[in-house]
Amino acid sequence: MTDAATGFALDPRLAADSHGVAELALSSLRLMDDSQYPWLILVPRVAGARELIDLDPAQRRQLGAETDQAARLLRQAFAPFKLNVAALGNVVEQLHVHVIARFRDDPAWPAPVWGRLPVRPYATEHLAERLHRLRAALAG
Amino acid sequence: MTDAATGFALDPRLAADSHGVAELALSSLRLMDDSQYPWLILVPRVAGARELIDLDPAQRRQLGAETDQAARLLRQAFAPFKLNVAALGNVVEQLHVHVIARFRDDPAWPAPVWGRLPVRPYATEHLAERLHRLRAALAG
Repeated sequence: MTDAATGFALDPRLAADSHGVAELALSSLRLMDDSQYPWLILVPRVAGARELIDLDPAQRRQLGAETDQAARLLRQAFAPFKLNVAALGNVVEQLHVHVIARFRDDPAWPAPVWGRLPVRPYATEHLAERLHRLRAALAG
Repeated sequence: MTDAATGFALDPRLAADSHGVAELALSSLRLMDDSQYPWLILVPRVAGARELIDLDPAQRRQLGAETDQAARLLRQAFAPFKLNVAALGNVVEQLHVHVIARFRDDPAWPAPVWGRLPVRPYATEHLAERLHRLRAALAG
């Protein structure tokens, strides 16, 4: 759905691969539908943005702050061994930042998660529980 | 070598895998020794930092600014199709940010570069040329 004021529309592949968690000041915070890792993405609602350096300075600072907020959220909710933070966009060009909680016993460790293993979507109840937990941590 | 004032020492694996380009205000800017991609890393000279969210707010903003500076440098010097920016640290825990110029005809495209293909170190002359080009673009 295109926002009338900004012309921004979430890329349909990102929409299909993830679930909305919350709308932050600049970005949509979404949970990737892969139950193998607690994996968030941030999508700044800026039409046409493709690279971090396409953002204006205020947007860039805000995205940095929201990236850190997502990282702290994952740390608080899941106590990961390591956080992975990345803006890649080789496949889906719409600017999005991955923030992923990694564990030494997760199935891709120590490799990056992208393209490593087939996606394992959440079961309905697991998804509801995870979204609830993330939203509660965000509010708390 | 450990800095006497800060206690910071570059991780020996990062030192072995990369070449110094410049010392920025917070970070060492280094070229990864893989000639398959123009690939920079930024290593903030902050002892013990492991995650972006370990930095204090001023350091975090500065690292964001230096990351963008490295991205603009690669864009200017190499006109890539896409930039990849990532803080992973699953193997080398010392905080470092990758900034990589990607092309649709590079050998890993569209996959991320990590662990994809065996490293191809620069030949001596190619390395000297590349370091010169990066330093000139940084100064210019």
